[in-house]
Amino acid sequence: MTAKQFEKVAIIGMGLIGSSIARAVRNNLPGVRLVAYDVLPAVRNRVTELAICDHCFEKIEDAVCDAELVILCIPVGAYEACAKAMLPHMRAGAIVSDVGSVKGVTGSTVRPHVPAGIQFIPAHPVAGTEHSGPDAGFASLFENRWCIITPFADADSQAVEKVRLFWERLGSNVEIMSPEHHDLVLAITSHVPHLIAYNIVGTAADLEEVTRSEVIKFSAGGFRDFTRIAASDPTMWRDVFLNNKEAVLEMLGRFNEDLSALQRMIRRGDGEGLFNLFTRTRAIRRSIIELGQETAAPDFGRQAASPETKKPSGHSQ
Amino acid sequence: MTAKQFEKVAIIGMGLIGSSIARAVRNNLPGVRLVAYDVLPAVRNRVTELAICDHCFEKIEDAVCDAELVILCIPVGAYEACAKAMLPHMRAGAIVSDVGSVKGVTGSTVRPHVPAGIQFIPAHPVAGTEHSGPDAGFASLFENRWCIITPFADADSQAVEKVRLFWERLGSNVEIMSPEHHDLVLAITSHVPHLIAYNIVGTAADLEEVTRSEVIKFSAGGFRDFTRIAASDPTMWRDVFLNNKEAVLEMLGRFNEDLSALQRMIRRGDGEGLFNLFTRTRAIRRSIIELGQETAAPDFGRQAASPETKKPSGHSQ
Repeated sequence: MTAKQFEKVAIIGMGLIGSSIARAVRNNLPGVRLVAYDVLPAVRNRVTELAICDHCFEKIEDAVCDAELVILCIPVGAYEACAKAMLPHMRAGAIVSDVGSVKGVTGSTVRPHVPAGIQFIPAHPVAGTEHSGPDAGFASLFENRWCIITPFADADSQAVEKVRLFWERLGSNVEIMSPEHHDLVLAITSHVPHLIAYNIVGTAADLEEVTRSEVIKFSAGGFRDFTRIAASDPTMWRDVFLNNKEAVLEMLGRFNEDLSALQRMIRRGDGEGLFNLFTRTRAIRRSIIELGQETAAPDFGRQAASPETKKPSGHSQ
Repeated sequence: MTAKQFEKVAIIGMGLIGSSIARAVRNNLPGVRLVAYDVLPAVRNRVTELAICDHCFEKIEDAVCDAELVILCIPVGAYEACAKAMLPHMRAGAIVSDVGSVKGVTGSTVRPHVPAGIQFIPAHPVAGTEHSGPDAGFASLFENRWCIITPFADADSQAVEKVRLFWERLGSNVEIMSPEHHDLVLAITSHVPHLIAYNIVGTAADLEEVTRSEVIKFSAGGFRDFTRIAASDPTMWRDVFLNNKEAVLEMLGRFNEDLSALQRMIRRGDGEGLFNLFTRTRAIRRSIIELGQETAAPDFGRQAASPETKKPSGHSQ
């Protein structure tokens, strides 16, 4: 298949993910006509300034009307209203997809509004940063990351393949699974980690015995890494937790059980139990690095400024 | 004061921190004679190969006998035995210090064995990486990081100033506080974050519904950052939790209370409550970056290899 499997792609929502897709399409699929829509005038203006798509429309119908692929890059809470406004204007034979972090919800919010002749193929590129907005995006965000496609049972297999190829062209590996399984997997690899990061940062901020200034100064001891995650987009994450309630609460239940056991080990002074757990978790880290999903560079010791240009001396000895 | 405030420094334990101090002393205090000791023959051999100190001794008494500053860089659980073996051989007027992550325990493990004429000035450089061993160290690890000195009430103020100056020469900012307050501050900024990171990585590893391979593949969604912390040295962290039990359990209690409230918000679908917390935590992140304790580079989107050389395109637009 050629780079022009789609002549025209429309991106709805030009935040971190939408604007990264735009940049990645520019780099990897140069023949494609690329249009966008964003609800916010400031974002539309900035996208036009950045010149990362051919046109950023003020009206959603103008963006989607003759696109062959329309990608929703908006918070999950806005899906239904957006689908209703947009779908009637899409051309026959087109594909609508998305990038949302929860997938079960696509069945109730978007799917009921999809007219005959339009294929809805939900997807989720598992990539991101803690930054938001069109300036935060970059073209390599999806390279060597996984994109999960969660087609409904009656999905057109050709449409699924087209979406797969699109993500592969942006540098991603693609896996296909059910929306339900996706939501369970992401609950443990993404949603609960975010929840506990948000939680500990909140706990630290509320302490009376330890000042806010002390928390910030001594954050290099581990806390700092949680603040990175806890700086992610509030609207997006609110919508994730409201729309993956069941799996998140289930995984949180397991987390809490395990934490109680760990708490008991500390209370009882069970050094062997602690040592065994801490050794086991180290092995998982190694697997992630081996699979190319992470670098082994010593991030804890990262420089306060421009880590890309200043390398810790002596590390690679 | 000159670079030669100490003619000879001895480092006991040449892991990540000990070997980083050695490298930093070489870089920043070139006139100082630097000797080391490590209990493991393999580490001693490697240190000799790396040539990061003048001599690495097989016997601890040979390393400490005429040093003016001796720094313990070993797990807290080994402090008492090491102190007993070492202190009788130190010269009068010398200072013994350490780098341990818990400080209350210095009063019961080392202090009772300190002979008259020796000053014991505990310290804790709040810096590290998830890697261990003499190869993992690097000279810039302490630059622009905080080092906390926790002198006892009867400490000689001149000795405290000497230790402060030593750390300042290695690039650190120094703060002085009581051992008890240190342990409370670090419980929230370091110990509990490590505990919950170890815990969630353990929880994920034990799931039956989600395979280990899925956890690893899709770790870029947030989980990955926890595995970094959960890859830290098991012995060191076992000793931290065994020796800061009270403060860790206290802070863990607060964390659990807050997590229950958050869990309830999710169960009840309280979007406003979630949004408010998520917005508040974002502000703390900003303070940490402003204080130079972190970079704003988009680490979530980090490259799988050599992040120092490959910069995400378009990010700084």
